[in-house]
Amino acid sequence: MWWEWLGVGWVMAELEVPAKRARNDGLDGDVVDEEELVPASDVTNAASLISHENDGVAPAPSTARANLSSIMPGWFSEVSPMWPGEAHSLKVEKFLFEGKSDFQDVVVFESATYGRVLVLDGVIQLTQRDECAYQEMITHLPLCSIANPKKVLVIGGGDGGVLREVSRHISIEQIDICEIDKMVVDVAKEFFPDVSIGFDDPRVNLHIGDGVAFLRDVPEGTYDAIIVDSSDPVGPAQALFERPFYQAVARALRPGGVVCTQAESLWLHMPTIKEIVTVCRHTFKGSVNYAWTSMPTYPSGCIGFMLCSTEGPPVDFRHPINPISQQQQLAGEQEKPSSRLPLKYYNSTVHTAAFSLPQFAMDNLESMLTPPLS
Amino acid sequence: MWWEWLGVGWVMAELEVPAKRARNDGLDGDVVDEEELVPASDVTNAASLISHENDGVAPAPSTARANLSSIMPGWFSEVSPMWPGEAHSLKVEKFLFEGKSDFQDVVVFESATYGRVLVLDGVIQLTQRDECAYQEMITHLPLCSIANPKKVLVIGGGDGGVLREVSRHISIEQIDICEIDKMVVDVAKEFFPDVSIGFDDPRVNLHIGDGVAFLRDVPEGTYDAIIVDSSDPVGPAQALFERPFYQAVARALRPGGVVCTQAESLWLHMPTIKEIVTVCRHTFKGSVNYAWTSMPTYPSGCIGFMLCSTEGPPVDFRHPINPISQQQQLAGEQEKPSSRLPLKYYNSTVHTAAFSLPQFAMDNLESMLTPPLS
Repeated sequence: MWWEWLGVGWVMAELEVPAKRARNDGLDGDVVDEEELVPASDVTNAASLISHENDGVAPAPSTARANLSSIMPGWFSEVSPMWPGEAHSLKVEKFLFEGKSDFQDVVVFESATYGRVLVLDGVIQLTQRDECAYQEMITHLPLCSIANPKKVLVIGGGDGGVLREVSRHISIEQIDICEIDKMVVDVAKEFFPDVSIGFDDPRVNLHIGDGVAFLRDVPEGTYDAIIVDSSDPVGPAQALFERPFYQAVARALRPGGVVCTQAESLWLHMPTIKEIVTVCRHTFKGSVNYAWTSMPTYPSGCIGFMLCSTEGPPVDFRHPINPISQQQQLAGEQEKPSSRLPLKYYNSTVHTAAFSLPQFAMDNLESMLTPPLS
Repeated sequence: MWWEWLGVGWVMAELEVPAKRARNDGLDGDVVDEEELVPASDVTNAASLISHENDGVAPAPSTARANLSSIMPGWFSEVSPMWPGEAHSLKVEKFLFEGKSDFQDVVVFESATYGRVLVLDGVIQLTQRDECAYQEMITHLPLCSIANPKKVLVIGGGDGGVLREVSRHISIEQIDICEIDKMVVDVAKEFFPDVSIGFDDPRVNLHIGDGVAFLRDVPEGTYDAIIVDSSDPVGPAQALFERPFYQAVARALRPGGVVCTQAESLWLHMPTIKEIVTVCRHTFKGSVNYAWTSMPTYPSGCIGFMLCSTEGPPVDFRHPINPISQQQQLAGEQEKPSSRLPLKYYNSTVHTAAFSLPQFAMDNLESMLTPPLS
């Protein structure tokens, strides 16, 4: 657990937060009622008092929230042992939700300049301003690389953003999603309608449960594509970075089927990435590739993806054969819900470029990727 | 001036810092003597006292440094109106230099995980860990796009990193650099030897002065390439983002000559970028392109470049005709100083990929770029 606010290790223990009445239905956490929201101006006022500490004035804060604001007035900071020595901070306008599920802490806040923000166990998962880059890339990199995908499985992705992108592809008949944490789904539906719109597609079947267990029960060769939209390999997502999981994924894919997984940052996690690539090279007998995208609110400003295919018809991930522009047009004709939202980040040029690796990454990974990069 | 530390607007006024004896020669600022360096452990100790503020304990800090650490114990945070509502922070091990030149505040610190860091007017300019991406891309994107460059001008770039990269190109006979702030050069030579190594090349001629004035005196058509390695368009670099400057650059280039300028972040500064592109489209009658690179310690995790050519032999920036691998090999044979340092970020694949723009950027810029992107 690394719920920390810069400056001190302020642990977000639910015991410290007075219980509040949930505004909505299925949410176990504390939905912050409108009248309890702490506008930034108040936070600033509380902090400005406390900033007189060097005059010997140390006012006693009346609530846990005021205590927080005395340390980092009005800002959320992402501190983690996974990116030691650095932290990205966003200015908070309002906290909208604070809860603790069976798996993790769940927080939603309205930021000053990145829209609403979803935080799990202290780590930013999405902001309204830049979620397009992650959701579009993790989805269309695999789905535009194979012709005519019909059955897709999403593991994780409980916010619905990947579903929103998958649903642009009209060839798809069945979209299964297995998310371990129902609170993430409920929070997304409540606070991120532009993201959770993905659940509105009638082709979507939501399963709440463990992804590894779900895969065990899937008949061999079921899916054309599996997208693993996980958080970092600490906490509930840890198993999604281990060998048995990749083996289960390979088993659930048809020959020449594809998987795309969240695969950390080239700048920060090269040892982890090398381990993942090694496992994938053992597991997937088709191609094994690494791609990445710019992503401002993720550590180091970028995030990578493993893209692999099973033995069977070869897949050339670097050159999309199922371009999204064609899909969009078709979807527009059929008026699927997400067809009304234009793509913000992905296009076919960005697709191919995503596989270009900085030299330091080439030096580390090139010999393990297949087909070879050059 | 936006010298702020997260939490309060702590202005870095030189008056508040006790004068210290400079350890070295030409530096006007305060080189922090070894015995005066504040190790992180001390900072933490001071801060941990102050963190008892809510118990009513508010110890009086004995120095300005302790005052600082009471707000953000041991961290540097980059807060600026140019990226409102967000801030990137690095954990500080030691402050190595704090000075104020005629143009800006200059700070060097040793960070916990990014090596040494150069900060100008509160904004991170380079860290040892990721400077490779910026320096290699801003240099090789233009120089690998033309055959046989001989005369190159660098404007800004006083840390020497661009010079280090330029010097890999053995066709080059003359490398002029015009940096406005001598303190930047001196600090780089003192604290960043792997970067300022670029000054060791005998082809380099250093001019301390204003870039706009320097260009005025340059005979028309002098340079094959001009690289503008500026800070943001606030403070001393402001003139480097304005029309007269671009016109002076175009005049100083030979027909079919190229310029590469630092051009902000696609995610954060689209209006500024559109203005720059518009000015360039008026000024450069060859091609006008935008490229970008990942850059973890710059806001939004990426930074862009304008790449333009003057009327004359056409330049296709997207497909390098003067690959660096060939240059490196030649340089190795001739044993130029920088030839012993391998490239860390740039390669020909990354070069081409850098011109791939996210859809939101295509929507904003595509019609103004030439030749057209698709």
